[in-house]
Amino acid sequence: PDAAYRQQALDRQQLLTKPPGSLGRLEQLAVDLAAQQATHRPRADQVHMAVFAGDHGVCDEGISAFPRAVTGQMIANFAEGGAAISVLSRHLEATLEVLNLGTVEPLGHLPGVNNLQIAPGTANLAQQPAMTHDQVTAALCAGDAVAERAASAGAQLFIGGDMGIGNTTTAAVLACALLNDDPEALAGPGTGLDAAGVSHKVEVIRRALQRHGDNRDPLAVLTSLGGLEIAALTGALLGCAARRIPVLVDGFIVSVAALVAVRQRPGARAWLHFAHRSAEPGHDRVLAAMEARPLLDLGMRLGEGSGAAVAVNLLRAACSLHNSMATFRDAGVSNRED
Amino acid sequence: PDAAYRQQALDRQQLLTKPPGSLGRLEQLAVDLAAQQATHRPRADQVHMAVFAGDHGVCDEGISAFPRAVTGQMIANFAEGGAAISVLSRHLEATLEVLNLGTVEPLGHLPGVNNLQIAPGTANLAQQPAMTHDQVTAALCAGDAVAERAASAGAQLFIGGDMGIGNTTTAAVLACALLNDDPEALAGPGTGLDAAGVSHKVEVIRRALQRHGDNRDPLAVLTSLGGLEIAALTGALLGCAARRIPVLVDGFIVSVAALVAVRQRPGARAWLHFAHRSAEPGHDRVLAAMEARPLLDLGMRLGEGSGAAVAVNLLRAACSLHNSMATFRDAGVSNRED
Repeated sequence: PDAAYRQQALDRQQLLTKPPGSLGRLEQLAVDLAAQQATHRPRADQVHMAVFAGDHGVCDEGISAFPRAVTGQMIANFAEGGAAISVLSRHLEATLEVLNLGTVEPLGHLPGVNNLQIAPGTANLAQQPAMTHDQVTAALCAGDAVAERAASAGAQLFIGGDMGIGNTTTAAVLACALLNDDPEALAGPGTGLDAAGVSHKVEVIRRALQRHGDNRDPLAVLTSLGGLEIAALTGALLGCAARRIPVLVDGFIVSVAALVAVRQRPGARAWLHFAHRSAEPGHDRVLAAMEARPLLDLGMRLGEGSGAAVAVNLLRAACSLHNSMATFRDAGVSNRED
Repeated sequence: PDAAYRQQALDRQQLLTKPPGSLGRLEQLAVDLAAQQATHRPRADQVHMAVFAGDHGVCDEGISAFPRAVTGQMIANFAEGGAAISVLSRHLEATLEVLNLGTVEPLGHLPGVNNLQIAPGTANLAQQPAMTHDQVTAALCAGDAVAERAASAGAQLFIGGDMGIGNTTTAAVLACALLNDDPEALAGPGTGLDAAGVSHKVEVIRRALQRHGDNRDPLAVLTSLGGLEIAALTGALLGCAARRIPVLVDGFIVSVAALVAVRQRPGARAWLHFAHRSAEPGHDRVLAAMEARPLLDLGMRLGEGSGAAVAVNLLRAACSLHNSMATFRDAGVSNRED
């Protein structure tokens, strides 16, 4: 981000017809976006969204409340426009890409779906490495290609979303490995496990971590313990940071992809805004590790990028206020008496 | 609110292609709006906003960081379109009314301002009743007339905003009287007082409460300790509830007007959504008294209705999701395995 534009934006905030600081975090949002976009007039109008889907071999361990077939069914729902993220992308007039990184059953042709099918889902990470080196590379590159398309389209903001039955288990394993944290702190109900289900999930995570061992290199962890869609998200976030595109990070899954990205390239952190605090309990640990304070706390836990989509209008409002409010001088309003 | 439409909306939320509850508070928002609007398809597209301004005699006690002249100057800024609420109302394509209930210096004609000038501001409530019976009635009726215009315009949501230098003192006095609470708990920095300024504000509030005595009738309290714009807000909120228009309540000042309204007519509570938690520290006590859990917590403390305006898109997103998402059956998506 550009320090000179940041300072000019901070100065402008002091001139607008309001008590200083009275717009709270909206002021900092506008300032951060001005610095990231290197502009006097930050915008979040052109939003490029991509939802990344993939299946998880760890579903063999019985860690999800929904059947694995839902991943592919939801990809079709994204393409048909009936999913939450489809509705929200239309509401925002945003571009929405749908990418299938790999489902257990091949999808066949679906209009509007970029059907990459890198693998028939990941391997069962409780028993063996989730991905091969070639697979994780292909997923990272698929994410980077999305960032390239976002840049070409003039995106002012990028949002990545996830779909993958079982991926709160995968994300929790990744977070445990990268944060050296306990499975109990990172495992949650996901789409709706009961307490016994969460306990079983903790045991599966523990086995995966034991199998993996001590390697803490972010890409090695991602290969061994990741998901195809999480790897693609990591690639997209790194690609956006490299192309100076601000990112609005969604909930638990995307935040774990952001954690992998930031551990791999710490400078990527400066391009990330955090949209919301997920109801998934492990999210707080992941956010804290990146010193991230999310904008919303609405008890959402859907994924797909839905929490980030809901937060977009906060950035748009922040930009409108920054760009369009009158200054004390222009409006002939007296400033405070000191 | 309509119980049958509420139940139908609750049922529909269970059919949409998402784990139950995974949209968090957006689900309840859509359900509440469906019940309030008595419809299968709730909407927050037609938003009627009104900012109510007035001066406060208690400014004679030196309780604000800004000079009193700012009230009138900001009314001109609202009319010119340069204030935060002006920018946000355009951003939302909302109707914005500007009402001057009474400034110390008469404003003269300002295009776009409903210049009622009920009184040259309130009297100094630390020394005498703030308003006469006729004045408070005129202000309540001005608010009710706004609600009537909102209803005639087919508003799906109402937002009231405030402008009045000194009005955090007035609001704190009202809250203390209605909640039997301590001035220390309700007085805050407002537009920017330092600690010594807040201590002085506490003393002024204490004097006002002593002068007022023990009468806890909401309208008697409002007359003795209120502000013209707060009385008009109270009238607008009561008028919206009577006309079955949902209201999105802004921050500290509007929440105190809501408290007066709810104490006067408890049934009004069912029409209120609470937009945000203000940085003004007394807001929490007022929210708690109405069992209100605001949607946003962004450190805003501007007033004008700005926090409510920023929250509108959460209601719009909730409605879009409720109305436009596919059901499990329509999308051919498997439901959870239980």
